[in-house]
Amino acid sequence: MLEYATEDLSPDEIAAETELYGSFTQSVRELVDATLRTEVDRAEILAVQEQVDALTARLRVAQTPGPFGVRMSSKGSVRNHGNAVVGLRNAVAPPLTVERSGTGRAWADFHLGAAYEGPPGLVHGGVTALLLDQICGEAAADGGAPGMTGTLTLRYRRGTPLGALHAEAHLDRVEGVKTFVVGHLADAEGVTVECEGVFILPRWAREMVSDEGTRAVFE
Amino acid sequence: MLEYATEDLSPDEIAAETELYGSFTQSVRELVDATLRTEVDRAEILAVQEQVDALTARLRVAQTPGPFGVRMSSKGSVRNHGNAVVGLRNAVAPPLTVERSGTGRAWADFHLGAAYEGPPGLVHGGVTALLLDQICGEAAADGGAPGMTGTLTLRYRRGTPLGALHAEAHLDRVEGVKTFVVGHLADAEGVTVECEGVFILPRWAREMVSDEGTRAVFE
Repeated sequence: MLEYATEDLSPDEIAAETELYGSFTQSVRELVDATLRTEVDRAEILAVQEQVDALTARLRVAQTPGPFGVRMSSKGSVRNHGNAVVGLRNAVAPPLTVERSGTGRAWADFHLGAAYEGPPGLVHGGVTALLLDQICGEAAADGGAPGMTGTLTLRYRRGTPLGALHAEAHLDRVEGVKTFVVGHLADAEGVTVECEGVFILPRWAREMVSDEGTRAVFE
Repeated sequence: MLEYATEDLSPDEIAAETELYGSFTQSVRELVDATLRTEVDRAEILAVQEQVDALTARLRVAQTPGPFGVRMSSKGSVRNHGNAVVGLRNAVAPPLTVERSGTGRAWADFHLGAAYEGPPGLVHGGVTALLLDQICGEAAADGGAPGMTGTLTLRYRRGTPLGALHAEAHLDRVEGVKTFVVGHLADAEGVTVECEGVFILPRWAREMVSDEGTRAVFE
């Protein structure tokens, strides 16, 4: 069974933490971008690397022993700060800020830079799959039928340019333990990638699904 | 049409650059991991953030104006250092070191840490899609039938734990401009995700495909 942690923080504490970590991680994302694009000379790179290593050591003085996990308060608020797509504290994540209708729709508007490139100037095809998996999973959860990804099918209509993008998905139907979701990724010119996902709630989790917090683990 | 750059570096220059940037980017990956997992106090995070911003500014003194792209020497050697899966200079990439048989097979053994998490302790389902898309594309190219992703279908057999993993794919068949590839992701216990990809070479690229370097753009 998956493990998840419960932490009790007040709304004010959560807001302060969100601001602190959100801003810090954004700075690290900028460093990731600069690391990829820099053209400074060898000596300067070596000097910067030494400083980066020193900063990492300072952060590691106290750290969680494993991955971040998904943390919940006893009141059901969820912090999936480590998530590879939406994680506030994860510099690998763009991160997407996903909005929801409350009726089985989820969407996000975002910008992808150099770190998400595949073919020159285009988003890596696998990155589009990564983002759509998350959006589809959130649509399933928003429609009251959360689950882990069972199957995911992507159809690439054309290359997706790096830059401003929009992703959305909606719950299409529920058949037993399977939730069918359809979605797409688009740029200003229209759809670039279409997808269909089937999300399935593992048996061990079905008895826990009435708990809002636990449901969110699968989003 | 996609743009790609041509740079003429000697093998020694390329080796030195690989060592320099590979090591530097690995340091930044460690910082990304520490950023996610740190439990140092607010004052220390703010102090580290200020230093991170200063380092970013030093790197940005000289930088490529857009994304990294895919760069080739006139002799056909390829440097896709910006790639989101295999990019040596991309801290978002694990990165995977993909091996090839020369006969349409590609595989990689690698380790995924906290930055690739979805459900607690498990690899994000979308990350598995991201990695398999790259491996499948490389298998298609290795088999002499490269292309951009046309469709990608993933079947999730069980959750993929963070840690040591193996991915592989092979060219199954070629039908006209379509290359069919099958692959999977596995941990020590066996297969966790199966996939099938169809890769298609865009019309404008077909006349360029005899150029080994250009082919590599689609890998």
